[in-house]
Amino acid sequence: MSTIDLNSDMGESFGRWTLGDDAALLDVVSSANIACGFHAGDPVHMLNTLSHAQAHDVTVGAHVAYRDLAGFGRRYVGATVDELHADVMYQLAALRGMAASCGTQVRYVKPHGALYNRIVSDEQHALAVVEAIARIDPSLAILTLPGSAVGRIAREHGIAVFHEAFADRAYTPQGTLVSRREPGAVLHDPDLVAERVLGMVQTGTVQAIDGSIVHLQPDSVCVHGDSAGAVSMAQAIRTKLDEAGITICSFMEQSR
Amino acid sequence: MSTIDLNSDMGESFGRWTLGDDAALLDVVSSANIACGFHAGDPVHMLNTLSHAQAHDVTVGAHVAYRDLAGFGRRYVGATVDELHADVMYQLAALRGMAASCGTQVRYVKPHGALYNRIVSDEQHALAVVEAIARIDPSLAILTLPGSAVGRIAREHGIAVFHEAFADRAYTPQGTLVSRREPGAVLHDPDLVAERVLGMVQTGTVQAIDGSIVHLQPDSVCVHGDSAGAVSMAQAIRTKLDEAGITICSFMEQSR
Amino acid sequence: MSTIDLNSDMGESFGRWTLGDDAALLDVVSSANIACGFHAGDPVHMLNTLSHAQAHDVTVGAHVAYRDLAGFGRRYVGATVDELHADVMYQLAALRGMAASCGTQVRYVKPHGALYNRIVSDEQHALAVVEAIARIDPSLAILTLPGSAVGRIAREHGIAVFHEAFADRAYTPQGTLVSRREPGAVLHDPDLVAERVLGMVQTGTVQAIDGSIVHLQPDSVCVHGDSAGAVSMAQAIRTKLDEAGITICSFMEQSR
Amino acid sequence: MSTIDLNSDMGESFGRWTLGDDAALLDVVSSANIACGFHAGDPVHMLNTLSHAQAHDVTVGAHVAYRDLAGFGRRYVGATVDELHADVMYQLAALRGMAASCGTQVRYVKPHGALYNRIVSDEQHALAVVEAIARIDPSLAILTLPGSAVGRIAREHGIAVFHEAFADRAYTPQGTLVSRREPGAVLHDPDLVAERVLGMVQTGTVQAIDGSIVHLQPDSVCVHGDSAGAVSMAQAIRTKLDEAGITICSFMEQSR
Repeated sequence: MSTIDLNSDMGESFGRWTLGDDAALLDVVSSANIACGFHAGDPVHMLNTLSHAQAHDVTVGAHVAYRDLAGFGRRYVGATVDELHADVMYQLAALRGMAASCGTQVRYVKPHGALYNRIVSDEQHALAVVEAIARIDPSLAILTLPGSAVGRIAREHGIAVFHEAFADRAYTPQGTLVSRREPGAVLHDPDLVAERVLGMVQTGTVQAIDGSIVHLQPDSVCVHGDSAGAVSMAQAIRTKLDEAGITICSFMEQSR
Repeated sequence: MSTIDLNSDMGESFGRWTLGDDAALLDVVSSANIACGFHAGDPVHMLNTLSHAQAHDVTVGAHVAYRDLAGFGRRYVGATVDELHADVMYQLAALRGMAASCGTQVRYVKPHGALYNRIVSDEQHALAVVEAIARIDPSLAILTLPGSAVGRIAREHGIAVFHEAFADRAYTPQGTLVSRREPGAVLHDPDLVAERVLGMVQTGTVQAIDGSIVHLQPDSVCVHGDSAGAVSMAQAIRTKLDEAGITICSFMEQSR
Repeated sequence: MSTIDLNSDMGESFGRWTLGDDAALLDVVSSANIACGFHAGDPVHMLNTLSHAQAHDVTVGAHVAYRDLAGFGRRYVGATVDELHADVMYQLAALRGMAASCGTQVRYVKPHGALYNRIVSDEQHALAVVEAIARIDPSLAILTLPGSAVGRIAREHGIAVFHEAFADRAYTPQGTLVSRREPGAVLHDPDLVAERVLGMVQTGTVQAIDGSIVHLQPDSVCVHGDSAGAVSMAQAIRTKLDEAGITICSFMEQSR
Repeated sequence: MSTIDLNSDMGESFGRWTLGDDAALLDVVSSANIACGFHAGDPVHMLNTLSHAQAHDVTVGAHVAYRDLAGFGRRYVGATVDELHADVMYQLAALRGMAASCGTQVRYVKPHGALYNRIVSDEQHALAVVEAIARIDPSLAILTLPGSAVGRIAREHGIAVFHEAFADRAYTPQGTLVSRREPGAVLHDPDLVAERVLGMVQTGTVQAIDGSIVHLQPDSVCVHGDSAGAVSMAQAIRTKLDEAGITICSFMEQSR
């Protein structure tokens, strides 16, 4: 395995408030999860992020979310299935139309925050998201965790599914993420993290928190850019992969 | 002239709050200006309105607005040109993508409320709207007043322009609307209004508030549905036109 | 028992959108739960509702909610304890200051919708609400269901607690509400409902859905005004109680 | 003149988005203009900022604004007088009630952004703001420019008025601010700016952009904290004033 995708959240500024160093990240990643206005990202920032992604030849995904600017989409919202379905369609359609006007196109969907986590197991909300994708553009893929409900339901609907691993998170022996509430859940050493990512790519595995080996075989690895440290870590990962001769390429291109 | 379009605002409910009798209006009009979420209309109501318009074979337009739910888009917002441009693109793209999933398509843009009025004369905001249309879909037409800045700029950009008259408003001898602050500005008698609309269609003229004759030659006549009286008036207009053998047909279809 | 409070939600309009017939209800009830802007109720409507409540000598309560205009506060929002605490303080403080300027005062808190239901059992969110009340004004009472977590926690913090019954809802033999998903959960016959409310007041009991007798002893009975039928039912209840010589009086006044 | 107030905008974060270095500014200024949720500042950030201001013995003002999170309150919004009046009451009441729970109190109002600029000349919006202050707490002062409509109307309503100068802005010979669109409108040299502020305090004057002397006699000088450079400049001003033996003290305290 000599190719991997790196993805990161982008376009999460809103009005006067800026967040993340998108310019730096666009030199690191091959896929950009772009906020669609419901947890972050107003239309001006969406247009700018789309243009920059296009200029850097970075593949665009829709980072759809619950309607919750005040909570940055990190809070579960008990939306009805109809509400969630329509909200996701709206976000997808908006980003998709704007992408075309910027000379690029939305290729995949990565749900954000509380929605991402919820549809790992909530089948009703997962189905609402999948059907929204199918109605707006069934050629869009979805990026999720291995073993998620939304992944299974997406496949049943003919939607392509790709899996991601997290660069800076500890794993349980079962291959799930160690809860952030537990010690050691988040890794902070850029060298160590870069080394782990290289291992994920070269061997398809990572060492779990108990020292055992977990098989991940990710299509993409998620990196962050919402702090100076996060950008440095993302750059360290990129450098490590480049030095090892790994090609950074969107999972959407790999699938062709 | 034996054909006219009737247009009306629709889909202006939001969450728990309903507004207007869209079901009744869909039997009256040939074009529906559908709210896109910035002054009214959440994604659930947008989907429903699109589906109903499709089922009634009513042509769909995007009722784009300033970002102002609290003011229902009736308040001027001093947005920068970049903000307005991006906000209109976002709204157009969202409605357009959702329309396709409902088996219909957006055919025109009718700006709403304060934006509608502003771009009659504000060239910067008019240009922002026109360029947004051109970037999302240059085959979309725009529906506006005769003599407006946005109409002139749209034509310069190759965007088709159609003109509307207002069924229940008094006109000055110059062909502009009498201000709502003046007596007699709004007409309330359904029979009189229906008679006036028939005259607009048959002769292309209407009697101004001073008794003089104004040439309007509208492509479309705007009717309202946001009260019981408004719906009755719209139905009276429709009946009058039907009885006179006038065909009610979207201006977008007429233009073909 | 010859005195009872009738309470109803009010001020739930927002901008252009109106909801409920507050004018009619102010002749029926003795306590008004006024929306504070987070699920409904903008500042203009808050001021109007406060002024009308003052003019009708109706006691004012704060109808605080999760931050969710799009969902009308009916959706659970996974807010952190700090977020909910601060959000409730903000709403309470806003209504309280505006009430003083209208010559009245907020006397109690009735959480709305999803928040109302959640803190029947969620101790963390219940505590966040109680501490918000205690910080803004510990002389405010709380209106809730009998047996709720928020009631118990409020008492522990020295906050007065009052209980309400629902005029139009069926009860289980255990005194809880029959789920809306089950048949017979909501009663629609105004005469029957008025008779039940009279029974609640005169005997402190109501017949459960299985025919058994439930002891409720409510301090207040909740009536609705969000439809023409609801207003008629509220008026029928009021008439029935008046004819039986029952005094309608806010639970806050009864407690003095 | 050996005493001056320094004021700065604070609490302008929102949810996940942080803005400004409030901690650093609280060591510099004597008055904090705290956002109230309409242009920035959610309830969590309001509570935190109030607590920090109380701990630093910094006087609290309400930084009220048009309802415009997306535009950060920098866009004029054509609100009706009733809407603006109620919106300002709501914001004032919310901050005032929360301040009390933090052991401090709101002492003055400084309108924000587009509202600040608008009511320098718009008498209707100025009156709406003044009457809102008078209804919520007529002991609140207002901080504005010399010669503003809102200042005159406030005095007519018995509201105390204080004037501010801007540390980093060039002045016209008439004592108004040089438009940001003109060269030299904003000063960037911390030493120069600190020197000018010292002059404003010691002589009540400043050199205008044409070299002439303008009489300002400010009660307060506005400094910024929304960038690293702004904080450094604010600290340089504070150091310069401290070294000159000037007492930094809120204008509200000076007025006693």
